[in-house]
Amino acid sequence: MTGSPGRRRRADAERSRAAIIDAAIDLLGRRPAASMEEIAAAAGVARQTVYAHYSSREALLGAIVERITGETVAALNAIDPGGPAIEALREWLTVSWEVVGRYRMLLTVPLPAGDAAGEHDRHLPIMERLTEIVGRGQATGEFTTGHPAGWLVAATISLGHTAGQEVAAGRMTPEQAGAAYRESVLRLAVR
Amino acid sequence: MTGSPGRRRRADAERSRAAIIDAAIDLLGRRPAASMEEIAAAAGVARQTVYAHYSSREALLGAIVERITGETVAALNAIDPGGPAIEALREWLTVSWEVVGRYRMLLTVPLPAGDAAGEHDRHLPIMERLTEIVGRGQATGEFTTGHPAGWLVAATISLGHTAGQEVAAGRMTPEQAGAAYRESVLRLAVR
Repeated sequence: MTGSPGRRRRADAERSRAAIIDAAIDLLGRRPAASMEEIAAAAGVARQTVYAHYSSREALLGAIVERITGETVAALNAIDPGGPAIEALREWLTVSWEVVGRYRMLLTVPLPAGDAAGEHDRHLPIMERLTEIVGRGQATGEFTTGHPAGWLVAATISLGHTAGQEVAAGRMTPEQAGAAYRESVLRLAVR
Repeated sequence: MTGSPGRRRRADAERSRAAIIDAAIDLLGRRPAASMEEIAAAAGVARQTVYAHYSSREALLGAIVERITGETVAALNAIDPGGPAIEALREWLTVSWEVVGRYRMLLTVPLPAGDAAGEHDRHLPIMERLTEIVGRGQATGEFTTGHPAGWLVAATISLGHTAGQEVAAGRMTPEQAGAAYRESVLRLAVR
C-alpha cells in the first residue's frame, strides 16, 4: 500500500508535463513568441503549474527539443538496417524532413544553446543514425569516399536547416524545399 | 582655410577606427572572448577611445563584419564576368573560403544578429555575386536547373558555414574542409 499515493502523484505530474509540452508545441508552431502564460492557458493549467515543471521558457524549450528528438530517433530506428544504404538514406531524409513539417516551431522559435557546439550536441542522436548509413554506403561503394563520413553527415544536417529556413522565410514551399533537400543530399552522397 | 582642422580631425578619427578594427580582428582571431579593454590595449588606444567610436562590443563586431564584407565583395567583383560560369563559381568558392582562412574570428566569435534573418542580410552582397554566377550557369546549361537558383545559393552559403564549423571544432583541417566545401558545391551545381 505504501508508495501508491506517490505513484499516483508521479503519474499526475507526467500527464501534466505531457499536456504542457503538447500545448506548447502546438501554440509555438502557430505563434513563435507565445509567452509562458499563454502556453499555460492553452494547456489548461495555471501559470505556476508550468513553472513548477519548467523553471524557465528555456527549460520548457529544452524539454520540447528532447521530446521531438526522442520521436525522431524512434522513427529513424525503424529504418531497415539491412537493405541498400541508398534506400536507408532516402528514408532518413524523408523522416527528418517530416519532423520539420510536423513541428513548424523548429523553423521559427529560437532554441536554447543556439551556438554551433550546442547545435551539434542537439543533433548527435539523429546524426548517429545517419553516420551509420553513410559509413555503410561508403563501405559498400554506394557512396562517395573522397571526404570523411562526418562531412557528409554535417552537410546533410546543414542542408536540412537551409531548406527549413527557405520555407520559414517564404522563399520556397515546403514541397520545393523538401525535394531540394533530398535531391541535394543524394547528389553529394551517391557515387 | 576653413574646414582644414575639421578634415584633419576626421582623418585622425578614420585612422583611429581602422587601427581599432585591425587590432580587434587580429586579437579576436586568437582569443574570441577578448574584451573591449584588451582590444583597446592591442590597438594602443584608451578604452574610452574605443567606446567613442563603437558604443558597444556589438557595434564593433558589426563594423568588423562590414569591413570583411567590403573586402570580400571587392575580391568577388574582380572575378571575370565573361568566362564560363563554372570557372566563375570555382573562383567564387576559392575567394569565399580564403576569407574564412584569413579571418579566423568568423569561425569562433558569435556575431550580432545571429538569427536566420540577420545572417541572411549579412550575406546579401556576397550572395548577389553568387546569384549572378548561378543564374548565368543555369542559362548556359552548365548548371542544374531542377531547383531555383536561390536554393543553390543558400546551400552554398550553408556548406561554407558547415566547413568552417568543422574546422573550428577540430574535426577537419582547413585544407580538408575547403576541398570538401568546393567539391560539394560543384557537385550540387554542375549538371
